[in-house]
Amino acid sequence: MPERRVFVAGFDGYLGWPLSQHLLKRGHVVAGVDAFLRREQVAGLGACSAVPVASPQERKSALREHFQQTPDLRTGNMLDFPFLRAFLKDFQPDTVVHLAEIPSAAWSMIDQAHCSFTQHNNVIGTLNLLWAMHEVCPDAHLVKLGTMGEYGTPAMPIPEGFFEPEFRGRRDRLPFPRQAGSFYHWSKVHDSNNTMFAWILWGLRATYIMQGVVYGTEIEHQSDDPRLKTRLDFDQCFGTVVNRFCCQAVIGHPLTIYGQGGQKRGFLPLRDVMQCLTLVIDSPPNAGDYCVVNQFDACYTINEIALLVRQACSEEGLTVDIMEVENPRMESGRHEYQPDREQLLALGYQPAGSPLQEIRMMLADLLPQRERIEARAELLLPDIRWDGAHRRSGVLGREAAG
Amino acid sequence: MPERRVFVAGFDGYLGWPLSQHLLKRGHVVAGVDAFLRREQVAGLGACSAVPVASPQERKSALREHFQQTPDLRTGNMLDFPFLRAFLKDFQPDTVVHLAEIPSAAWSMIDQAHCSFTQHNNVIGTLNLLWAMHEVCPDAHLVKLGTMGEYGTPAMPIPEGFFEPEFRGRRDRLPFPRQAGSFYHWSKVHDSNNTMFAWILWGLRATYIMQGVVYGTEIEHQSDDPRLKTRLDFDQCFGTVVNRFCCQAVIGHPLTIYGQGGQKRGFLPLRDVMQCLTLVIDSPPNAGDYCVVNQFDACYTINEIALLVRQACSEEGLTVDIMEVENPRMESGRHEYQPDREQLLALGYQPAGSPLQEIRMMLADLLPQRERIEARAELLLPDIRWDGAHRRSGVLGREAAG
Repeated sequence: MPERRVFVAGFDGYLGWPLSQHLLKRGHVVAGVDAFLRREQVAGLGACSAVPVASPQERKSALREHFQQTPDLRTGNMLDFPFLRAFLKDFQPDTVVHLAEIPSAAWSMIDQAHCSFTQHNNVIGTLNLLWAMHEVCPDAHLVKLGTMGEYGTPAMPIPEGFFEPEFRGRRDRLPFPRQAGSFYHWSKVHDSNNTMFAWILWGLRATYIMQGVVYGTEIEHQSDDPRLKTRLDFDQCFGTVVNRFCCQAVIGHPLTIYGQGGQKRGFLPLRDVMQCLTLVIDSPPNAGDYCVVNQFDACYTINEIALLVRQACSEEGLTVDIMEVENPRMESGRHEYQPDREQLLALGYQPAGSPLQEIRMMLADLLPQRERIEARAELLLPDIRWDGAHRRSGVLGREAAG
Repeated sequence: MPERRVFVAGFDGYLGWPLSQHLLKRGHVVAGVDAFLRREQVAGLGACSAVPVASPQERKSALREHFQQTPDLRTGNMLDFPFLRAFLKDFQPDTVVHLAEIPSAAWSMIDQAHCSFTQHNNVIGTLNLLWAMHEVCPDAHLVKLGTMGEYGTPAMPIPEGFFEPEFRGRRDRLPFPRQAGSFYHWSKVHDSNNTMFAWILWGLRATYIMQGVVYGTEIEHQSDDPRLKTRLDFDQCFGTVVNRFCCQAVIGHPLTIYGQGGQKRGFLPLRDVMQCLTLVIDSPPNAGDYCVVNQFDACYTINEIALLVRQACSEEGLTVDIMEVENPRMESGRHEYQPDREQLLALGYQPAGSPLQEIRMMLADLLPQRERIEARAELLLPDIRWDGAHRRSGVLGREAAG
């Protein structure tokens, strides 16, 4: 594959940090920006990453030691347009991977301040990136991270971005309607719309990734250097469900299912995210083309996920209860979910392993971190509610390990 | 009709100012907020309202003299959440009419700064309003002004907000896909989405108005007091097409059609806006209901509008040429346009007059303002282009008055 100049917006995040290493390993020239908002926000919740996270300085030192090149990683905010524009102009990327957004549904639902902050940060940050690329690197390929959550759970199959429905005897190719379930998810819909418009307006070459729920602690050929490990959050805001379940499991806390657990979602292991993003980066659309990719490996209900985690645990001799708690979110608890996944398969995506294998790896990584997780066990029950009431979810039922 | 407490966000604007008077006349208790951004932005373009606009102080004095009550009109910004929340808490409205947004497609397309400013102002201002209403007046009826431009020009009929399409043999009720044509129009789509979510989330009682292109200088029983007249912009950013054409006509400037003039839009006279908003205000949806209303009288192509203006002019002895200029926008020049209009008709909307009558009234109001318009005649040809080039549109052709 040709060497590319890849700009990673959000290089310090859960995906951005391993992606930066993955790209360096593949010989690409990497630069990136991060405002370290995630560190601040997680600390603000009294939470922490289950896997210890090195400081930005330590992380940079580790990259210098492990890789041939010293990537140009700068501290800065996507809201600072002159900074962003100057950096992109300077670096002249072939590819821009945009991971620099606040990714939390629950955080955006805390109150007006968190909601506005999320939409402002995400929408204006993305707008700034679109304008900066248009002005200083218009031929670069934008790989923009969205979420499968933009689609909601309609009572029909979910295509990749666009569909051709029939209505009153007419057909037209239209954006597939979005029905997001949090102010965060809506911020990503706003991004989708602005990005699609930048493509129509300027011919921006873009791939919009509708990503499923990511889980995992490792990427392929993960270095043992603890400074190179990525974060793994388990709080209600930044901990995705499989990650939360695995953290609960290693300290013997019941897996907390929101509601009855019938919610179905697309899931993707972290190492497959690296594979998928690499496939997308290596196959830029033609100039002026726009591609929407549904990015997940397979769909499971939350109950199925809990049972997978329990199975992996029992192999390790860990006993895990499953507990239904009041769902703090407003979401359908029983619905169909048939998203397409043609684009990734066409690009050659092959899962690196099974979910069970992935969960086993996670448990091995998390078992040494029990104390860190236990010290924050009170964060394992959600208290940010979509209905605005400020109370922890009550327990609806508990099923002991069989 | 019962007396209502109506909060008008954007009371100083083209619609907000006459609406405030119209509501006072009907005996409602009115309060409102305005940041006077429009005055600033129009001045920033070197433009002005064709109809002289009294200062905020003069306008307030005029209200005191003409109406029984002195409405509580405060200077403030929708981005200032504590201010907005406190004001709403204090006033306890039955109805909130949200007109406090930057309404210009061209202004949002000038550059990154204008684009970000527009989306920030509109999206976060609306979010703040949704949160404030939820917190301090959750039963009030939100009347939110959107635009027909959110829909774009799909190759199928345009329903009111939602549709039930068929796709791969399945049907579901979904939001009708939006395909806006400027960063401004997308900001209104983002608003639509956030407002719909506030309804789903909080049961916010809301009517979302998809408004067509408004034109006109008068409302019913318009006072002769010049301090009570509303503004009429004719620059490329804030002048809607009929208003621009009438201003051009009264100074003998050719009517400047963008492209071939085949673009079709829904139109609505200013006095009918008052009628429609009143019908909506007087018929709030049930608690927890959400209603999307396509608000226009009839659809015309830009060519048809130009011919109507020419016809009204010839009756006044004004000779008017029609000139095709390069379209600075990116939009379809020939397309179908079949929007529904069921809701307004069901509420009892009846046009107050014909477009020709309306245009005659406008010409009568604008003829005394010739000097003001002539002094800014260089603003009559657009130079804000969707392709980013900074040049005035060239003339494609000219048809002399027949």
